[in-house]
Amino acid sequence: MHHALAHPEVISLAAGFVDQQTLPVEATLTAAEALLGDPQAGRAALQYGTTAGYLPLRAQVLERLLAADGLSQAETTASIDQVVVTAGSNELLHLLADTLFDPGDIVLCAAPSYFVFLGMATNLGVRSIGVEMDSDGMIPEAVEEQLALLERRGELPRVKALYVVSYFDNPSSVTLAKERRGRLVEIAQRWSKHHPIYVLEDAAYRQLRYDGDDLPSLRAYDAEGQTVIVTETFSKSFSPGIRVGWGVLPKALVGPVLEQKGNVDFGSPNFAQHLMARILDQGLFEPHVERLRTSYRGKLAAMLEAADEFLAPLPGVHWLRPHGGLYVWLQLPEEIDAGPSGRLLQAALDEGVLYVPGQYCYPGEGVPAKHNTIRLSFGVQSPERIRAGIEALARALARVME
Amino acid sequence: MHHALAHPEVISLAAGFVDQQTLPVEATLTAAEALLGDPQAGRAALQYGTTAGYLPLRAQVLERLLAADGLSQAETTASIDQVVVTAGSNELLHLLADTLFDPGDIVLCAAPSYFVFLGMATNLGVRSIGVEMDSDGMIPEAVEEQLALLERRGELPRVKALYVVSYFDNPSSVTLAKERRGRLVEIAQRWSKHHPIYVLEDAAYRQLRYDGDDLPSLRAYDAEGQTVIVTETFSKSFSPGIRVGWGVLPKALVGPVLEQKGNVDFGSPNFAQHLMARILDQGLFEPHVERLRTSYRGKLAAMLEAADEFLAPLPGVHWLRPHGGLYVWLQLPEEIDAGPSGRLLQAALDEGVLYVPGQYCYPGEGVPAKHNTIRLSFGVQSPERIRAGIEALARALARVME
Repeated sequence: MHHALAHPEVISLAAGFVDQQTLPVEATLTAAEALLGDPQAGRAALQYGTTAGYLPLRAQVLERLLAADGLSQAETTASIDQVVVTAGSNELLHLLADTLFDPGDIVLCAAPSYFVFLGMATNLGVRSIGVEMDSDGMIPEAVEEQLALLERRGELPRVKALYVVSYFDNPSSVTLAKERRGRLVEIAQRWSKHHPIYVLEDAAYRQLRYDGDDLPSLRAYDAEGQTVIVTETFSKSFSPGIRVGWGVLPKALVGPVLEQKGNVDFGSPNFAQHLMARILDQGLFEPHVERLRTSYRGKLAAMLEAADEFLAPLPGVHWLRPHGGLYVWLQLPEEIDAGPSGRLLQAALDEGVLYVPGQYCYPGEGVPAKHNTIRLSFGVQSPERIRAGIEALARALARVME
Repeated sequence: MHHALAHPEVISLAAGFVDQQTLPVEATLTAAEALLGDPQAGRAALQYGTTAGYLPLRAQVLERLLAADGLSQAETTASIDQVVVTAGSNELLHLLADTLFDPGDIVLCAAPSYFVFLGMATNLGVRSIGVEMDSDGMIPEAVEEQLALLERRGELPRVKALYVVSYFDNPSSVTLAKERRGRLVEIAQRWSKHHPIYVLEDAAYRQLRYDGDDLPSLRAYDAEGQTVIVTETFSKSFSPGIRVGWGVLPKALVGPVLEQKGNVDFGSPNFAQHLMARILDQGLFEPHVERLRTSYRGKLAAMLEAADEFLAPLPGVHWLRPHGGLYVWLQLPEEIDAGPSGRLLQAALDEGVLYVPGQYCYPGEGVPAKHNTIRLSFGVQSPERIRAGIEALARALARVME
């Protein structure tokens, strides 16, 4: 990042930011004027809120989750009391990690996984164990094998959760296949021999689908609602600056998480929550997401086209074609080290492009880090810059492969 | 609180909220329109920010602190790199507590002290030790005695900080006297034999002065800037819903605090920070605080007048006359238990008034909790309701004293 800031001519395909040009200035102004134009509503928004968050917003996000999952209120055990609003879903992931884990506890994750979550786990003294994944996401059999191994070692009581980025994973771009969703929930339940093993479902990218049909969340496969924690955010789909995330928690976790949140800040900024509720109420959200999808769809196409043109000719370079999200995950020939100790990173910078070495996205144990991997993001740059960036990366790769 | 919500006819003099009627709807609308009316500025506000916070806002709060303390840039060691913005100062207090203390560590506080901070300390396994205070705040000699006692017990290495609410303390209403400010800083420095003992100055109420002259912060007495951490917030002086707090930290603490903050949420909501910077820039803050002071000045006068009329005739009931803040601290005859196990709390509810038992505001060790104390807040209610509330409290007291 420091390098990118110091050399603005370098095309960064590294940061997972959202495209600044698409940020919803007009929609936010419309909602802010409506909210603050009504003195009573405005005062309520400028006052303290509650620790769990603004009730109408919690009702809206729950309703949207159920609608997206194709469930009626009668078909779910989820209630508004289980919805918690936070400053982005990251804060919620941190609160959950702080609540669920003691030092030495274990979380199972796909290898690779979201590196910020892995960092949080490490900082809390939690062991992250990487499980094999393929183009359909985390492999249920691999999860079972890992659990059986841990049981033989007497470490099963330390396993507290499975962490799954269920849509357009950061960094692997993979969406967990429909038939695996119920199976992962069932596995977590069946192995909850000592205490609950939760499935922590990070659905941050769910709204960013560019083709194909939406899938139900893992929460939809949790009939009793005691296993899956689902988290989502408006940071990617609307604005990271307003910064409203939320989750639906199993009943048993609501109290402990709110107690910790009360301890930290008594609840996330109330004004941002009222503003976000207004945006949803006034129908300003859907048209924005649709515009966003159109923009990112074009950028993803630009990256895949450039990859087909410039990377495909290089031997042993592979990637998946994502249906959403912000990332393309690149696998290189095994002998190429894309990390800071290899030659490619510097060669890429010399050619004018920056990427995230994939090795940073691997859990501390389990499947070992693959140094021949790269996370590319198409979120920030224009289609032209994306194409130029991929071309530069291909030049760097060709040099290193020589 | 539950009781107050279930019985709206009860006059709550308990909550330390700000007066909903005074919340700055128009000023916020003006700033929001200016910010979002400029597409480029609007987009920047809706994007991710940095972990430390929005640079122009950090520059503004530092400039204001120096101006209030009567210092020029040349006279201070404080730089913008030491300013950290958080979601209210509470989040900063929590980050600081998390960073400064290990379980078993000690913080010295006035007895009584802000109960939310005491709760945070307890939850982190930190021992809070209460030191005697009087109408000039924490007594320096009592701090020295406590430090000497801890040294004799071999516990000095566990003392990591002094916590001081330096203006219109919550709950005691006391402002730390000018001549004690430098002395507390000097004491902390002199006793930093094993490692730094920080002075954590919570200046949340500094802006809410209703008479007399402002005093320099404790930070102004810390020439090297390695001892005092000063925290402030716009929650009390502008809006708790926007929720922007900030602090100036000794250089050695900036890295660790930002690392922890990055781990939790990568920085507080950016939009709220841009909005607050706009409010300051456009000169919308000062006129609002002035209106706020006028409103609270009247409410404080109403509470003190009612106290003179209804409480003064009761034997052994005493209070201080605060110059700012939101609280009046009441001392009752020793035999009266104002807590949940005494008769007064229920008698007060029966008469239609709710207060905070003072016993909740005492640190875990040191000066023992006084059960014959009450925290009253004049922030929320109208002057008429304040008068009626004090009259009801006097009736309850008279009944219990019979």
